[in-house]
Amino acid sequence: SSLKSSGQLEPGADGTPPGYETLVVTSEDGITKITLNRPTKKNAMNTQMYHEITLALEAASKDNSSITVLTGSGDYYSSGNDLTNFTDIPSGGVEEKAKNSAILLRNFVGCFIDFPKPLIAVVNGPAVGIAVTTLGLFDAVYSTDRATFHTPFSHLGLSPEGCSSYTFPKIMSPSKAAEMLIFGKKLTAREACTQGLVTEVFPDGTFQKEVWTRLKAYAKLPANAMRISKEVIRNKEKEKLHAVNAEECSVLQERWLSDECMNAVVSFLSRKAKL
Amino acid sequence: SSLKSSGQLEPGADGTPPGYETLVVTSEDGITKITLNRPTKKNAMNTQMYHEITLALEAASKDNSSITVLTGSGDYYSSGNDLTNFTDIPSGGVEEKAKNSAILLRNFVGCFIDFPKPLIAVVNGPAVGIAVTTLGLFDAVYSTDRATFHTPFSHLGLSPEGCSSYTFPKIMSPSKAAEMLIFGKKLTAREACTQGLVTEVFPDGTFQKEVWTRLKAYAKLPANAMRISKEVIRNKEKEKLHAVNAEECSVLQERWLSDECMNAVVSFLSRKAKL
Amino acid sequence: SSLKSSGQLEPGADGTPPGYETLVVTSEDGITKITLNRPTKKNAMNTQMYHEITLALEAASKDNSSITVLTGSGDYYSSGNDLTNFTDIPSGGVEEKAKNSAILLRNFVGCFIDFPKPLIAVVNGPAVGIAVTTLGLFDAVYSTDRATFHTPFSHLGLSPEGCSSYTFPKIMSPSKAAEMLIFGKKLTAREACTQGLVTEVFPDGTFQKEVWTRLKAYAKLPANAMRISKEVIRNKEKEKLHAVNAEECSVLQERWLSDECMNAVVSFLSRKAKL
Repeated sequence: SSLKSSGQLEPGADGTPPGYETLVVTSEDGITKITLNRPTKKNAMNTQMYHEITLALEAASKDNSSITVLTGSGDYYSSGNDLTNFTDIPSGGVEEKAKNSAILLRNFVGCFIDFPKPLIAVVNGPAVGIAVTTLGLFDAVYSTDRATFHTPFSHLGLSPEGCSSYTFPKIMSPSKAAEMLIFGKKLTAREACTQGLVTEVFPDGTFQKEVWTRLKAYAKLPANAMRISKEVIRNKEKEKLHAVNAEECSVLQERWLSDECMNAVVSFLSRKAKL
Repeated sequence: SSLKSSGQLEPGADGTPPGYETLVVTSEDGITKITLNRPTKKNAMNTQMYHEITLALEAASKDNSSITVLTGSGDYYSSGNDLTNFTDIPSGGVEEKAKNSAILLRNFVGCFIDFPKPLIAVVNGPAVGIAVTTLGLFDAVYSTDRATFHTPFSHLGLSPEGCSSYTFPKIMSPSKAAEMLIFGKKLTAREACTQGLVTEVFPDGTFQKEVWTRLKAYAKLPANAMRISKEVIRNKEKEKLHAVNAEECSVLQERWLSDECMNAVVSFLSRKAKL
Repeated sequence: SSLKSSGQLEPGADGTPPGYETLVVTSEDGITKITLNRPTKKNAMNTQMYHEITLALEAASKDNSSITVLTGSGDYYSSGNDLTNFTDIPSGGVEEKAKNSAILLRNFVGCFIDFPKPLIAVVNGPAVGIAVTTLGLFDAVYSTDRATFHTPFSHLGLSPEGCSSYTFPKIMSPSKAAEMLIFGKKLTAREACTQGLVTEVFPDGTFQKEVWTRLKAYAKLPANAMRISKEVIRNKEKEKLHAVNAEECSVLQERWLSDECMNAVVSFLSRKAKL
């Protein structure tokens, strides 16, 4: 049976899960599918979306699905952190904004670290920033050949998050990770697959069909065995990953207040305003 | 001088090493070669073979050879754990069987972790399960292009062993490891080489000739330097690998008693009985 | 502004940095470039060069450049440790020589571990031994397709250094690392790139032009962001890398006095004398 929820923020009186403003969540065939749903904004992650993904992952971890999928609606997987987040300054000023953002980011990434079932990214288009770095915490990453993978942290005066400072040097080599994370090199889907960040690349024309056929087969495997195998593989890293996440967020909290970052964001937003 | 032993279980009165029922062990040109020798059973590992491989590795670690090779006779490298092992239930019942199997497996894998000389797999054909996972503990893995690599743990209601829950995410990326260990994806020899599990692939027609020419050259290198280099490379991991091995065996001991596993094994054996 | 220093060993009275006998060091466009400059000796590293590289890296870590580059003059990147170092025996004998060499090597490698800015190797030709192993500590390794990568430690009765016993199994797989470090397999530039040791390979004809165009673009990125991103990525490993370095040097100190090594070095030097 299919369940589709969106548009409401509170749990329904009939016990259905809460709706979402920025997501569409469905569950059928043993698969819970979380779709980023701000297609006109390239699925950029605003504060609301960070919260809702956290809630949706928590719900998926407890529902009766076998595997969980994250994907995007429209042309993009996600363009990453919505830079207009930087313009919404609370009464406590930029320091409070930076502190709140670090807490939000840390909780968000923590949900990926702790997710107990197989977690699969269906990368339907370009991915940027936090949408790229968190891929290192997925159990499979299937990508259309149209996707690209870009983490321009240095260009924005920023530093790595999503545990990428730890997972990327392990997944790739340290120098290939540095090209992405320090020098901001953008990878094609094929390059990302060669580097191990993407598990398999599909032609865009058959992408959805091939991937969902495969995922439906996976979802029929014994669910406890999959969950326990993931636990055996991942539990060795959990403590380390949470420590990395905390450190990355702490460094970013300072970077957000740096001249390098402020200048880069102002420059970006003023270019955008002129368009 | 060449030494060939098989067929006897006890050390000979003349001081020659013990014979084996399931292996052929030879030693010449500085190379001790351990051949899995149940070709009509695709070199499936029964309890006897687990014990004998352990004994053969212990003997090889102390003989005067420079390097040690594991390979299979016939078409298969090894089809992995002999599932008929599950049908040999002791008087203590299935719980005792699971406990004994966990001890057997832990000791078996422990011998690979501790092996002090260069250890090389000559993968002459398809490999399944424990024959695949232990490859992460070898110093070189040479494979015919005819080989495949398959770890269908979830299909059997089981979970990873042979330290693969630790070595595979390091060798490949975590998501490529998950495809094998959680979703049971079978790799070709070329794919396994791209992922780093196999060191080099050779055309089947020239496989044996090319590999043994190379191994004979390796065996002429200074033996102490090789042993010490291996020690420097591997000693950083030994304690971790033994802990991983213990945890994997402990989880498997429970999995073997699970409904998911029991159903899968009964289904497998009944299909086999109908053939 | 460009600064070029060579030929003097002491800092100039006018405050310019010290000159070097075995290096040419320049700094412009935000890039400090350290060039190994013994082209008639294939940039083999003699004791003087080890010291001078250490000094040059310390100076580069404090100057106002954004990134630092190591490269070679002439046809070779570096043929590695100058084996004539073995013939310069102090009054304390070979034991003292081995002890001094271990201290020299440990300090040398320690500078690469601690280097705080992006460190990039421009591999202009073949690399051997310590010139290969230290590549695992760089943030990017760009190579001409003419280069090869060779660590014939076992052939010389030696064992791995430069933290390669730790970095190579992480960068490649353990078995691909063992092929280089234990069995002395020489890699082409393309193979080294596939293995992750090299970040990107360029045709020799356009190598210098393409690489320096890229490096000049990198040097314009926010310098603090790059330094802090490197710190976040690398600080997790520093303590471990220093321990690995200490252990490798300690093992080598013994290997240098072994019969296997002495015989190999005498054989090498006598072959060289006959040419």
